[in-house]
Formats: sequence, structure tokens, C-alpha cells
Amino acid sequence: MTARRPKAGLVSLVGAGPGDPGLLTVRAIERLAAADLVLYDGLVPAIMRALSPDAVWRSVARRAGTKRLTQADVSARMIAAARVGQRVVRLKSGDPFVFARGGEELQALAQAGIRAEVVPGVSSALAAPALAGIPLTHRGVSSAFVVLSGHDPDRYEPLLRALPAGASTLVVLMGLAKRRALGRCLLEAGWPPRTPVAIVTRASQPGEGVWTGTLARLGLRDGFNRRHRPGVLVIGEVVREASRPRAARRA
Amino acid sequence: MTARRPKAGLVSLVGAGPGDPGLLTVRAIERLAAADLVLYDGLVPAIMRALSPDAVWRSVARRAGTKRLTQADVSARMIAAARVGQRVVRLKSGDPFVFARGGEELQALAQAGIRAEVVPGVSSALAAPALAGIPLTHRGVSSAFVVLSGHDPDRYEPLLRALPAGASTLVVLMGLAKRRALGRCLLEAGWPPRTPVAIVTRASQPGEGVWTGTLARLGLRDGFNRRHRPGVLVIGEVVREASRPRAARRA
Repeated sequence: MTARRPKAGLVSLVGAGPGDPGLLTVRAIERLAAADLVLYDGLVPAIMRALSPDAVWRSVARRAGTKRLTQADVSARMIAAARVGQRVVRLKSGDPFVFARGGEELQALAQAGIRAEVVPGVSSALAAPALAGIPLTHRGVSSAFVVLSGHDPDRYEPLLRALPAGASTLVVLMGLAKRRALGRCLLEAGWPPRTPVAIVTRASQPGEGVWTGTLARLGLRDGFNRRHRPGVLVIGEVVREASRPRAARRA
Repeated sequence: MTARRPKAGLVSLVGAGPGDPGLLTVRAIERLAAADLVLYDGLVPAIMRALSPDAVWRSVARRAGTKRLTQADVSARMIAAARVGQRVVRLKSGDPFVFARGGEELQALAQAGIRAEVVPGVSSALAAPALAGIPLTHRGVSSAFVVLSGHDPDRYEPLLRALPAGASTLVVLMGLAKRRALGRCLLEAGWPPRTPVAIVTRASQPGEGVWTGTLARLGLRDGFNRRHRPGVLVIGEVVREASRPRAARRA
């Protein structure tokens, strides 16, 4: 495959995947290798560090902005760099358009008349269950899945109360802190207490872990604490269909 | 980055992404390069053909199984090959665990005692809207999205009728043929007729297209036919937040 060098002044909103550098896309690597400026989020440095022995990545780290920028700062820096002809990569963990403000950044670039592209990444919403062997859809079990943020109960509770109990798979990002309340909300909405639940922590990264239990026990003495964040919750009968892959992830 | 050679007898369930070879992951490329046998689905050959000038890919094509196998045949071939120590790649378009029977295949491998791994891919459920500049979540607009198959109305209708009207983003795979019925179901459930809808066809591939309209007009003289399949439907207010990236995808 031949690398295509991006044009001067292009901003690439790039998904970095869940953390394992092997889950970066070919296009992501190409864009990073050609970038004059890389702006990354707090969750991404693990990926950078994992790749640091490679010269390309040492170089990326040198060109990388810090994570202590406000959203307005990020947009302003991307726009300023693109205007002087730099190739900019805005690197976000997972996919840039899933709970990552990629939409807002793309709008800011469009308003400023900057050329931009989106390079989709492997979202942890899908990769975390996959790496734990849990199919989000499974014939005869679930033909739909719902991805939501566990950040704001005012937003997720109306949805959880409305869903037909147990009929689809729920994937909750940023939901580890509120897992007890989430579970209670579903129980009140009529989900069976024995509905299986999995919590996948550090998906694709060293220290990856999978906890499995039931909705009734979600958040009760499961041993999770701040150290485990971020974790992905998977709720639904598909958890019962899981086959934990027998190979080490890094064969 | 150093390629890690998979162990003999390993079966890798690999997501090929939406079609653009640049959206394959590094791990997918590594596994394909090392494979003794590659079994792929009908949607994947476009990716193969796009990469055919490369020696690795010519070699992959030589080792590839045909797509005219039943599900039982596929599992039997994977198991037989792994038992004689071959490295097997089972390549699926998008992500292997999203409407792709990856769960069933992983179960068959586990029951046969075969070592297996999952290599998540970029799902077209997320990549198609992203490449069209549509954020699935957007602050103040949508904090959840639902992914469903438009294949079987008996399965999706109860879910669509239950969802709070207009509150989350819907992504429908394999829904182009039933788009009119899907739209009517949502209108009956109280979704506003002016809810914006996008249909993304051939996401990430040559001939990629985006149609935008409203729920009221979904399926009415929109010019779609069998030739456009597969297409991804995105329904919800986030479609209004789209900024079509100004750069050519293949800069």
C-alpha cells in the first residue's frame, strides 16, 4: 500500500481506537506520520507511549500539543496551523464522532473555511465487548444495540425507562461511576434482575479485565473504583453468548 | 512498529472496516499478511481488489476461500485448518460482532477447542455517518444512539415504537429496502415529520454518496434502488449538525 501524503492545510479528525496501537487504522498512521501538528486528548497518550520506540512516534510526540487546552483553544490552534499550511491531526481516543465533540470541531473548521476530513476509528463502544467475546447482536437474542453515555441521568433515564425491557443490548460509556443507579433504573423499568451484565475495563490495553454479573448485583461489592475507569458496561442477554477468546490478545 | 506473527493454529475473526483499505487496522494487515487461509464474506472482495497491486494482497487472494460457503461450512473449514496448524483469518466487512455472526463463529471455535482472537474493525454503523460529517452524538442534541438492522420489522418495530420520539439518533443497517416502512413506523410513534434523515451509500468507497431529507419524505421518489445497497440510514436531529468535510477522502 502506498501512503498518500495529505495536502497542506488539511485538518484530519482521527480516531485512535481503544488504546492498542494495533487497532489504529492504516490511514491514521499515514496522517500521523505526515502531520506538522498533532493535538490529542487525555486518553490518547497511552497509545503514543506504547509506540514511542518507533522514530515516527517520537517525532509525533515532539509535534504534539498538550492536553491542557480548552475546546476553544483546540479549535483556534487547529485553524491557525491549517491557515499557515500545516498538516494537522486531531487525535481522539476511539472514534472522533462518538461522545468526543468531533462534530463541534468539524463545525468550527467549516465555519473558518478550513479543509477537513474525518478518519473513523475503532470505537471502544464496539471494541470493548468484541475483545471480551461478547457479540452486540446475535441471531435470536438481540438485533439492536443502544450506545449511551452514563454521564447525565437526566438524559439517559428517559431512554432507559422507555426501552422494551431486555429486548436490546445496552452499551454504556462513562457509566462506571453511576452503574448502581443505571442498574436500578432498568430494574424499575421491568428488566429481569438476572439480566447478565459485563464491565470491560482497559479494553485492548495492558491490564484489560472483564467482570460479569447480573443487573441485580451491578454496583454491589464488585470491587471497581476510580482506578478502573474508563470501563464499558454491556447489559443484555448477549453477555450470555460470550466466548472469551482463548488467544492472548498480543499473540 | 514490529509485526507480531500469530501463533500456529490461531483463528482471527477480523473486521475489515467499511471498504476503504485505509480503514483496515494495523492488526488486520498483520494477520492477513501471516495467514495460511483467509475466509471472507461477500462484501469484502472490494477491499481485496483495491489492494490487489500489492504482493501481500495478491497472495491473500490466492489463499482466500470462496464466499459460497454456508455458515456450517465456514466453521468446519476454520476448525479443520486450525487443527493442522494453519493461521486462519475470518475477514468480515465492518466489525465482526455487529450483525455479522461473529458470535456464532466464536462459539463454534470455542466448542471445538480452537484458539481464537477477535480483531475489532471500523463498523460502517459509525463510519458511514462520520464520513458524511454527521456526529452520532452532539452536545445538547443527542447523547445516545441506537443501531438496528432494518431486515425484520417484527424485531425493529417494537423498539422504534418505544423510543422517546426524536430523543436519540437512529442508525439503521440493511434498512434501505424497508426505509418507507421504517419512516412510517416512526411517524406513527410521534417523531416529527421534519426530523432530518441521511442515507449514506458506499461509505468510504468509490461512488460514496449522501442523500439528506426528512422523515416524511423517506422512501418517496429519492431515486434509490438495489444498486445503492448497502446504505446506512441515520435518523435524528444530529443530521442537521453535519458539516460535510471539505477534503476529498483520498487526499
